Amino acid sequence: MNQHDLKNPHKELRSLLGTRFSTDDTVRDTHARDASHHQGALPNAVAFPKTNIEVSETVKICAKYNIPIIPYGTGTGVEGAAVATEGALCIALNEMNRILSVNADDRDVTVQAGVTRLQLNKHLVQLGTELHFPVDPGADASLGGMAATRASGTSAVCYGTMQDNVLGLTVITADGTVVRTGSRARKSAAGYDLTRLFIGSEGTLGIITETTLKLARLPEAIASAVCAFPTVDAAVNTVIELMGAGVSIARIELLDKLQMDAVNKYSGLEYEVAPTLFFEFHGSTHTVAESSKIAGTIASTHGSGDFRWATDETERKRLWQARYDSYYAALNRRPGSVGYVTDVCVPISRLAECIAKTKTVLKSSNLSATMLGHVGDGNFHVVFPLEPGNKDELAEAQQISEQIVDFALKMDGTCTGEHGIGIGKRAALKKEQGEAVELMRTIKHALDPQNLMNPGKIFL
Amino acid sequence: MNQHDLKNPHKELRSLLGTRFSTDDTVRDTHARDASHHQGALPNAVAFPKTNIEVSETVKICAKYNIPIIPYGTGTGVEGAAVATEGALCIALNEMNRILSVNADDRDVTVQAGVTRLQLNKHLVQLGTELHFPVDPGADASLGGMAATRASGTSAVCYGTMQDNVLGLTVITADGTVVRTGSRARKSAAGYDLTRLFIGSEGTLGIITETTLKLARLPEAIASAVCAFPTVDAAVNTVIELMGAGVSIARIELLDKLQMDAVNKYSGLEYEVAPTLFFEFHGSTHTVAESSKIAGTIASTHGSGDFRWATDETERKRLWQARYDSYYAALNRRPGSVGYVTDVCVPISRLAECIAKTKTVLKSSNLSATMLGHVGDGNFHVVFPLEPGNKDELAEAQQISEQIVDFALKMDGTCTGEHGIGIGKRAALKKEQGEAVELMRTIKHALDPQNLMNPGKIFL
Repeated sequence: MNQHDLKNPHKELRSLLGTRFSTDDTVRDTHARDASHHQGALPNAVAFPKTNIEVSETVKICAKYNIPIIPYGTGTGVEGAAVATEGALCIALNEMNRILSVNADDRDVTVQAGVTRLQLNKHLVQLGTELHFPVDPGADASLGGMAATRASGTSAVCYGTMQDNVLGLTVITADGTVVRTGSRARKSAAGYDLTRLFIGSEGTLGIITETTLKLARLPEAIASAVCAFPTVDAAVNTVIELMGAGVSIARIELLDKLQMDAVNKYSGLEYEVAPTLFFEFHGSTHTVAESSKIAGTIASTHGSGDFRWATDETERKRLWQARYDSYYAALNRRPGSVGYVTDVCVPISRLAECIAKTKTVLKSSNLSATMLGHVGDGNFHVVFPLEPGNKDELAEAQQISEQIVDFALKMDGTCTGEHGIGIGKRAALKKEQGEAVELMRTIKHALDPQNLMNPGKIFL
Repeated sequence: MNQHDLKNPHKELRSLLGTRFSTDDTVRDTHARDASHHQGALPNAVAFPKTNIEVSETVKICAKYNIPIIPYGTGTGVEGAAVATEGALCIALNEMNRILSVNADDRDVTVQAGVTRLQLNKHLVQLGTELHFPVDPGADASLGGMAATRASGTSAVCYGTMQDNVLGLTVITADGTVVRTGSRARKSAAGYDLTRLFIGSEGTLGIITETTLKLARLPEAIASAVCAFPTVDAAVNTVIELMGAGVSIARIELLDKLQMDAVNKYSGLEYEVAPTLFFEFHGSTHTVAESSKIAGTIASTHGSGDFRWATDETERKRLWQARYDSYYAALNRRPGSVGYVTDVCVPISRLAECIAKTKTVLKSSNLSATMLGHVGDGNFHVVFPLEPGNKDELAEAQQISEQIVDFALKMDGTCTGEHGIGIGKRAALKKEQGEAVELMRTIKHALDPQNLMNPGKIFL
């Protein structure tokens, strides 16, 4: 769409949103990419609505003029789901940042899509609720974006993913209708589960503008520890044994030797440079003590070093901040690089085998890569810091990623545990889900016949 | 469709299924209804496929001749979802009763749709796995039917509903395609969540033929108890306080005074005839002891009697069998009656209020009714034993049910916690979900353009 064609829609959008509609180059550039190597076009403009009605009216104008719509949260995704396409309007949700209601007795909250998880958790502390929203992808992502991506992260092994922690949504569909899904009831059998259909749909079926979320109680006791292992295999087998024994663990994260080195350098820490597990235990004082003890015993039978405990909150936060910064630490190994990150998830019994096969492939590659993962779920990532614009490197990373996906699919796993499909995993999705992708496409076409909602994402 | 029109399709179906295709009157009659008052037509025939391919071929024949399809599990539903419509073929899934794979290390299992939950749990014991499938609607329902209904039951407060315990499905869609959704990975962000779209779709989008289920560990310790209260209100406030305190409870069930009387008579027991809570605690010996103690303390502050503990497995099974038989015990209050049962679910903070309003309405009614519920989830039922064919009674029960639904919706609740929509809650669904129902209808039309998959269910 050329500038001439955009004159009328831009006039209407400016009339609707005033200064919260922008065609400024810097603003457009800021909303052109996510946190990965994926590159898109510049959006033609960026809208910053504050209400459901403003999103609805914006969508109606786009539908009228056939303008593609790219919803944008915090830009912390890594599969290109928020990357713009030619001629698109970016709808940024960050001004929809109000916490609409907190029901402490029912342990639920309703927030606008742009509210971030740290913003919500800070608010819950300020209210003195002793509740928190537990899904934790590391980045301070928006809760709407997390729902759209079906995000999870370090705490999913204990608290589940976004799929498990959303009671309902407000969604603006392709024709601008404001649709409310779900309720505040803890369970329901009321028709099709549209809530979960929109969770993980990456903006291709509608724009999530509000989420009603389940909250968890802050645990009575928390203990965090770091523990080094002689090999990745020893660490992974510790995880498999712990999960098999049903030990209650809130987080259990693997970082390989190179990743630990990167973390030490990036975060100014002095952990042993060895394959390492980061643990966190939540529960009653009794449960935490019992679980920690069992974890220590099992780890030592796999040749681990001692558990290095983070005893107070400051130290615990520092430890986990290092884990959260791992992606940026990995990129920092090669200043100026862009990240390419894999994301398979396999049944836990196959995890050691899948990681071993991956390590073998990485050894014969020219690329340097680190490995880390939410191993309690069977989910791990390989991070390649790539030279921007280097096509050979990108092709090699892609080829390795495809091999890892093939390993995972042969083990009844998935090509993406938590990052989504975006533009990066479209072929892998087809390989994994086969005929089911045609069903997804039928649903997409039915709900968005003009193909304006985040077009080009999920489907090839 | 008259007999002449059915000659060719019946010939083809008989050729496909042999003696597993039946037009016998008794067989048709057996598959004409569910466990409730809802009445349907006789299906024209009943098919008993054993494989995905046979279901697929059956569906293709139906599509070719425009024959409506009614999937049928164990007929234990209560909203008429399995009730036949004029000219329909009933596809009974009970011969698809094979357990296809058990992965004890990954705590998952894949079963055909006709496998019942008790069959599966018996098999898991026989294999010596120390695992069980925890979702427990009371009836020995088929796992495919439970998935199609998004069933839950007594243990949902601890283990979740079918929504939370299914990893993937095999579904035969309206054109006969065999579609596999999900994987064995514990989490995935791979495209639209078709698994959860089919869960609760009540056969209107396709026929679930296989389910891959999460299994739970058998708890180290189990304790069950029954405890009488002076009033329903005292019992409900005990539940609200226990849930608020985060006490770990596996089941917490309310039965009112009339229901306890019915249970005593039906199951030959001698419990006190008073509002009663049935408790079950699962976990480590320590956790169970701790939770039981707190529950006892909180209950006594609400004026409860003593906890009557079921100390061994036989006694525990007897206690819960009485709870499971409650529906039939309620109907037994009036021999020969048919059941009409309500199913609202509200946020826990509103439960006492919703039950109080319901009690007030019941008091001014001519109908006798009992009340029971999965109160830890905010879910409760009123059971009316109706005289078959008595239109006045049915109309009054319906009118009361609508009032209860209105109470629940005003409290951000849902018209159905676990029974589904079927034909009984179609108007209530529209009242509850509004615009979202139109989205559901769009999806239904896209996936089943001929409207042959369980037509007339969910949508008015």
